[in-house]
Amino acid sequence: LKVFTCNSNPQLAKEIADHIGLPLGNSEVVRFSDGEIQIKLNESVRGADVFVIQSTSAPVNQNLMELLIMIDALKRASAKSINCVIPYYGYARQDRKARARDPITAKLVANLLETAGAHRIITMDLHATQIQGFFDIPVDHLLGVPILAKYFEEKELEDIVVVSPDHGGVTRARKLAERLQAPIAIIDKRRPEPNVAEIMNIVGNIEGKTAILIDDIIDTAGTITLAANALVESGAKGVYACCTHPVLSGPAIERIAKSKIQELVVTNSIALAPEKVLPNVKMLSVAPIIGEAI
Amino acid sequence: LKVFTCNSNPQLAKEIADHIGLPLGNSEVVRFSDGEIQIKLNESVRGADVFVIQSTSAPVNQNLMELLIMIDALKRASAKSINCVIPYYGYARQDRKARARDPITAKLVANLLETAGAHRIITMDLHATQIQGFFDIPVDHLLGVPILAKYFEEKELEDIVVVSPDHGGVTRARKLAERLQAPIAIIDKRRPEPNVAEIMNIVGNIEGKTAILIDDIIDTAGTITLAANALVESGAKGVYACCTHPVLSGPAIERIAKSKIQELVVTNSIALAPEKVLPNVKMLSVAPIIGEAI
Ligand SMILES: Nc1ncnc2c1ncn2[C@@H]1O[C@H](COP(=O)(O)O)[C@@H](O)[C@H]1O
Ligand SMILES: Nc1ncnc2c1ncn2[C@@H]1O[C@H](COP(=O)(O)O)[C@@H](O)[C@H]1O
Repeated sequence: LKVFTCNSNPQLAKEIADHIGLPLGNSEVVRFSDGEIQIKLNESVRGADVFVIQSTSAPVNQNLMELLIMIDALKRASAKSINCVIPYYGYARQDRKARARDPITAKLVANLLETAGAHRIITMDLHATQIQGFFDIPVDHLLGVPILAKYFEEKELEDIVVVSPDHGGVTRARKLAERLQAPIAIIDKRRPEPNVAEIMNIVGNIEGKTAILIDDIIDTAGTITLAANALVESGAKGVYACCTHPVLSGPAIERIAKSKIQELVVTNSIALAPEKVLPNVKMLSVAPIIGEAI
Repeated sequence: LKVFTCNSNPQLAKEIADHIGLPLGNSEVVRFSDGEIQIKLNESVRGADVFVIQSTSAPVNQNLMELLIMIDALKRASAKSINCVIPYYGYARQDRKARARDPITAKLVANLLETAGAHRIITMDLHATQIQGFFDIPVDHLLGVPILAKYFEEKELEDIVVVSPDHGGVTRARKLAERLQAPIAIIDKRRPEPNVAEIMNIVGNIEGKTAILIDDIIDTAGTITLAANALVESGAKGVYACCTHPVLSGPAIERIAKSKIQELVVTNSIALAPEKVLPNVKMLSVAPIIGEAI
């Protein structure tokens, strides 16, 4: 058994290797002057079961290419099995033809990984669980909810309600609510007419309660911060937000800083640049559950 | 027949479409806030023979991913055939295991293109012609030499010698020399001992002649500028340099500006940022020969 990492989550890779009790494999990602990537494997992998840790988070195309080239190098170096640990699976939101002639990039990426030579995928909270079926190789699909639930349990908050920021996330909210033995509520955004601002309808009782908003991905943080503010305006005592994948692109950090969210709880499925780690951002490690899965 | 472009060479794509006498297909490359790419095909391609123009030049991983997603979109939109015009094929220099455990990324990229759904590749001056064999689909391999030769013929230079900057490029130099009815010379770099500067041995007669250096790729321009200076020091009257693929990364432009090269002649297989187009850089269009191949 050997564990290698590319450049997207070296810190998490180190934690996973520590959890298993192995040193990280000796490899390098080299960048040539023109931006092309080369992978150097500085130790033998012949006959080994190899795990590669790499999220396809931003810069997504570069991180994906690093992973594909790493798989190619391992394959040609006669690794016995190549197991890709992709805590955050990029392009997951392009999972269907939402409009005519859309590509289905989540499926394309699955094909690219298999073509490169991956034998197994370990990933977390796919935006759509159907993406598992895009692969013809085994997919281990881990969930962030237990990690988030444990954190909130230990906080011993009282009178909580778990809130889904949209109707698509109700199943996820229910899972967290069950673990916390709390009721759920749903934010039902409606646009009464075209070009009229959306109305945030809150379905469920949140009055005087501490709300915990949950989503799989927080990207530009528009949905979640609007939801938080609507909850406070409608009488919630306080609002936490949590997600597995902190994409946090564009205006996200500014929006969160200005919002009514008192704490944002995320996992390290995506490494955060230091400037994104606001004082009220709590990062939980997925290393233990990935370590178990390996 | 329809011609589409991604973002790497839109100007060349326009020239190719003009050459064939067609408008460019209506498509867009969208970038989301987190850097993920989406392709929008704004017109039907059902049943059409589609040509996509895209070099995998820098930013190579992004340009490659744009092309792969474009192919996926065309495939799912029922294009009859998907023909990829890749004037510059990136990662071509990773074409073999030069060291133990090296990946062979040029082959990986070939597999990725086929997996995405490409039916035919049209490319130019592959760094190694063996890369044609990395594909199981037809590859049209076009040459830059005729374009470069025509330019130098029209210049009516006298007493020329075509020089290969290294022993690997002799075949290419011979092709140009035949077209120009000129002799050849070769620069034979030798390092007498480790950690001693290389000696530029010139094989062939260049005394008092106008030298034309030719290479397939000029990347950081180290080899070509050292060669040019060695030629002048050894008595060449003047030095031109030419190549098909002007990668021109890192220190290239500064080196060329400071060198003894009086004119650098390149093709537009790679689009050049305006700051790279020095007054003595001449860019020739490959649109006519690609247009013919389509
Ligand atoms: N990286 C991305 N950033 C923002 N939106 C995206 C991204 N990828 C896909 N989408 C869009 O998000 C929608 C899918 O999200 P969802 O309805 O939550 O599954 C589609 O309309 C996609 O075009
Ligand atoms: N993008 C690149 N930039 C610079 N060197 C590269 C690049 N890709 C591969 N190489 C190296 O170039 C050598 C192959 O070049 P060549 O001997 O001319 O075929 C190998 O040692 C590669 O490691």
